[in-house]
Amino acid sequence: MKKFEEKTIHTEEIYNGKIVQLQVDDVALPNGKSAKREIIKHAGAVAVIPITKDNKIVFVEQYRKPLEKSIIEIPAGKLEEGEKPEITAIRELEEETGYTAESLSFVTSFYTSPGFADELMYIYITDELEKLETPVKGDDDEFIEVLELSLEEAKKYVEEERIHDAKTNYAILYLHALGMK
Amino acid sequence: MKKFEEKTIHTEEIYNGKIVQLQVDDVALPNGKSAKREIIKHAGAVAVIPITKDNKIVFVEQYRKPLEKSIIEIPAGKLEEGEKPEITAIRELEEETGYTAESLSFVTSFYTSPGFADELMYIYITDELEKLETPVKGDDDEFIEVLELSLEEAKKYVEEERIHDAKTNYAILYLHALGMK
Repeated sequence: MKKFEEKTIHTEEIYNGKIVQLQVDDVALPNGKSAKREIIKHAGAVAVIPITKDNKIVFVEQYRKPLEKSIIEIPAGKLEEGEKPEITAIRELEEETGYTAESLSFVTSFYTSPGFADELMYIYITDELEKLETPVKGDDDEFIEVLELSLEEAKKYVEEERIHDAKTNYAILYLHALGMK
Repeated sequence: MKKFEEKTIHTEEIYNGKIVQLQVDDVALPNGKSAKREIIKHAGAVAVIPITKDNKIVFVEQYRKPLEKSIIEIPAGKLEEGEKPEITAIRELEEETGYTAESLSFVTSFYTSPGFADELMYIYITDELEKLETPVKGDDDEFIEVLELSLEEAKKYVEEERIHDAKTNYAILYLHALGMK
């Protein structure tokens, strides 16, 4: 939909990083005036809701520098250019949890913060986890602890704000709505 | 929680805008190595799930420059420094929809994208909407269309990806889980 389209008059590239790019666009508004838009470009992300055979959800705890604390999240990672989101998601599952799955079921996708960023998050689910015989090495600069929790335990962590991010709060609500015990 | 803390060695300020600030931190990892972290600072945001007396959900459609399209969202806005999130949320409701409410009920909060941004989103709900007699003027550069939809209609828009952002997808799932008809 192009309703109220804001046409680009000029784009200023501010920063081109490993994770984000920042640009500031001058745009023409529907009333003919102009405005500035600060825009974060991001490759997109994937996340998996992994359910074990004994009905636990697999989470990872890691330090999130922007928050200056560690939180508990479902496994996730940045989308690789040209790669199908499901493939990235299986790799992140393997690297972060030591589990794998033949395939994943799509749950939903959403833009995490459409006011200033184009990051699109894809969420998958699987209850067909298999333990990897040989763990896969993840990123050198990722320090992660794996947790397996019941839905009740996870809900308690949401209340305590140890689970506190969009994809993971969505995942807990999704499992609750499915009637998971 | 400070598990796997990444201590800041050096912070480079890259950009200080109206909506976002960007900085790149050099951090010390738990294994003694160092890494770079690209960090978006954001004031935080609020959103409201507004339910009318005839059981419709009030949405706004607006152009989102980062996505180069318009999407349908629950009313939302940036948190003002020093202001209680509920107050900001009522003002955004008034400016964007022409409705007001005496108070709101807290639903949840979550970080929208904790890997690179500190934006915290607060979500509220109300079914005690009143039409404003005198509409409140919003931001000069916001062009918005108000829609009132049943939950079934909203779910259809989720499938069509005309509703496609974290807070609004969460809101629809929340109303579904509540058993709203």
